[in-house]
Amino acid sequence: MRKGCKYGTHRVIEPQGVLPQPALKISNDMEIYDNEILIDVIALNIDSASFTQIEEEQGGDVEKIKKRILEIVGERGKMQNPVTGSGGMLIGIVEKIGESLIGKTDLNVGDKIATLVSLSLTPLRIDEIIDIKPEIDRVEIKGKAILFESGIYAKLPKDMDETLALAALDVAGAPAQTAKLVKPGQSVLILGAGGKSGMLCCYEAMKRVGPTGKVIGLVRSQKDKERLEYLGVCHEIIIADAQKPVEVLNKTLEANNGKEIDIAINCVNVANTEMSTILPVKDDGIVYFFSMATSFTKAALGAEGVGKDVTMIIGNGYTKGHAEITLQELRENEKLRKVFEELYAN
Amino acid sequence: MRKGCKYGTHRVIEPQGVLPQPALKISNDMEIYDNEILIDVIALNIDSASFTQIEEEQGGDVEKIKKRILEIVGERGKMQNPVTGSGGMLIGIVEKIGESLIGKTDLNVGDKIATLVSLSLTPLRIDEIIDIKPEIDRVEIKGKAILFESGIYAKLPKDMDETLALAALDVAGAPAQTAKLVKPGQSVLILGAGGKSGMLCCYEAMKRVGPTGKVIGLVRSQKDKERLEYLGVCHEIIIADAQKPVEVLNKTLEANNGKEIDIAINCVNVANTEMSTILPVKDDGIVYFFSMATSFTKAALGAEGVGKDVTMIIGNGYTKGHAEITLQELRENEKLRKVFEELYAN
Ligand SMILES: NC(=O)c1ccc[n+]([C@@H]2O[C@H](COP(=O)([O-])OP(=O)(O)OC[C@H]3O[C@@H](n4cnc5c(N)ncnc54)[C@H](OP(=O)(O)O)[C@@H]3O)[C@@H](O)[C@H]2O)c1
Ligand SMILES: NC(=O)c1ccc[n+]([C@@H]2O[C@H](COP(=O)([O-])OP(=O)(O)OC[C@H]3O[C@@H](n4cnc5c(N)ncnc54)[C@H](OP(=O)(O)O)[C@@H]3O)[C@@H](O)[C@H]2O)c1
Repeated sequence: MRKGCKYGTHRVIEPQGVLPQPALKISNDMEIYDNEILIDVIALNIDSASFTQIEEEQGGDVEKIKKRILEIVGERGKMQNPVTGSGGMLIGIVEKIGESLIGKTDLNVGDKIATLVSLSLTPLRIDEIIDIKPEIDRVEIKGKAILFESGIYAKLPKDMDETLALAALDVAGAPAQTAKLVKPGQSVLILGAGGKSGMLCCYEAMKRVGPTGKVIGLVRSQKDKERLEYLGVCHEIIIADAQKPVEVLNKTLEANNGKEIDIAINCVNVANTEMSTILPVKDDGIVYFFSMATSFTKAALGAEGVGKDVTMIIGNGYTKGHAEITLQELRENEKLRKVFEELYAN
Repeated sequence: MRKGCKYGTHRVIEPQGVLPQPALKISNDMEIYDNEILIDVIALNIDSASFTQIEEEQGGDVEKIKKRILEIVGERGKMQNPVTGSGGMLIGIVEKIGESLIGKTDLNVGDKIATLVSLSLTPLRIDEIIDIKPEIDRVEIKGKAILFESGIYAKLPKDMDETLALAALDVAGAPAQTAKLVKPGQSVLILGAGGKSGMLCCYEAMKRVGPTGKVIGLVRSQKDKERLEYLGVCHEIIIADAQKPVEVLNKTLEANNGKEIDIAINCVNVANTEMSTILPVKDDGIVYFFSMATSFTKAALGAEGVGKDVTMIIGNGYTKGHAEITLQELRENEKLRKVFEELYAN
């Protein structure tokens, strides 16, 4: 077997010397290297920002969306949206394990797994798109993918439906980071609180702030407000447009007794929400951008422009134990699981 | 006195509900609100992209450039280039301080300051353009400007040349953040160590790690390596291309006795250096991106793709005391000051 690099650099075609994620094109030849795992793919869960972009670009036409996805994977060897740069994740069955990984991995041939590394760096070959479920950004396919030695994954839990687990695992970084960042007594604003990562973050923040803290969820529709009320995962819920910083600032201050908040967590899936996330936070506070629509320069220059001494964190999709933390939330909270089943599982 | 909003939204004329920076027109009425500072302006330092655009548009004719600048400020109430969207900064003397700021600000009437917020959001009235110095994008004027309560500034030091101070203040966020992040005994990698912000960060990191830590500077030329050796601000200097993550990883490990580092600070000015900054850092370490060429998605997905549990920070141009920390470095270190005078002052 051919010897591969831990990070998959051996698959990069163009440009040379870079890692698979920034590469324009990688090899999706399905003969594995000694430290790779071959996966028989069942479904792709496309990143929300990416799916929305493709959907809008193709006018919502499912056949055109299929064609565009095949085109992207054909060109790049991976499902990386050329506009958003983002990917998503996949589930499949372990088909073959590279010989140098035997004894090093806890995987066995036949295990059903979700890959927790982005599709934006995962070698992928699509033989056929079987179905697209736009409501849950899911693409069912016949095809193969490769997991690198450094690639993270989760064996799919037996106590929940696969689409449910996959939906939650897709945004596992957000609640796990929330668990690390939020401390007892703090006030936390979650923008996009009615979305998938938003609800998980609210639930986790609620646990972390304890009885003396405050979780403020920002949504833009009455429907989302009612769902959050049903879930009981926020102390206050405000309806506002995350693209309007002054409105967000004023409503947040109102919900927090006139005080600036300790932490803002951005789980929105549209652009131009940097200032709404930064403005309500107090000096020395934390701004956590999970949204992939975040612009680095808008955040950096925006904070400077309003003289905010805040620590701004780029949402790392991975943090230790993120899969377990996220699945555990659904096990702990009956209502959350029910809402997730209704919205994201089939 | 009229009560103003901390961020200057009370001056926005059009469109309503936005912040001063994205506004098309703000009020440059020079009667101050209770939390504003009136500045008697000496000179505008127009952002280089903006100045170049106006210069080209007006065929390099100084009289026409003057007319265009007066026109823009007349229309918008601020010197924001309608094509580039950018501003610049100004130098002036504090003329009046709003009553609610008295006791809250360290400024006094008569202080000479540089505003460190963009001209793209600063209310400005030009009475007369005295001179234009196209070689340094500088416009000397008679006029007034307003500094909002949230607006950051630096008192211009009496013990150094103005161009030297401004050059250092331009990147003041980086060394000040280094001072906050780096702890004794840590190993720190600085990418772009030979640049303006890079040298300041190395010097600051060297102070912070103390005798048990290690500062590794990454440069790409022998000339920069020699300059850093002369300055004595690194324990180890490696020559590598910051766009080649695998090369950077290997050379950093070699310079750090085979161990991953605690903190990486990116001061490079080119794109595609995210992974070189992430890869050498150990789990639970910190990645600080000062470079404006950083891509949010490349960093977020990149860290996930290699399974790195690191905290990634967006370089905020502002942090408390950043101007003082930075100017102090030049005062403390004779060699650093000399190099800065040679490279960046006139
Ligand atoms: N950093 C990472 O590693 C990582 C990993 C996975 C995903 N992500 C990113 O995280 C973000 C959220 O993902 P998700 O799956 O949670 O998405 P989601 O379920 O679609 O949630 C997004 C939420 O934002 C709301 N929203 C959109 N525009 C808004 C506005 N102007 N004002 C207020 N709310 C607004 C949406 O409301 P409506 O329903 O009313 O539109 C929705 O509730 C995406 O950008 C995704 O790319 C990041
Ligand atoms: N976050 C903020 O608020 C803020 C504020 C101000 C500036 N900035 C940003 O900070 C960055 C640095 O600013 P600066 O004034 O310090 O710039 P600078 O003096 O031009 O320094 C950049 C350094 O990066 C080096 N470099 C470029 N490409 C490289 C590569 N491939 N490998 C290794 N080194 C490489 C350059 O080396 P050569 O000389 O050999 O090209 C130079 O030494 C810029 O991106 C700037 O936009 C950010």
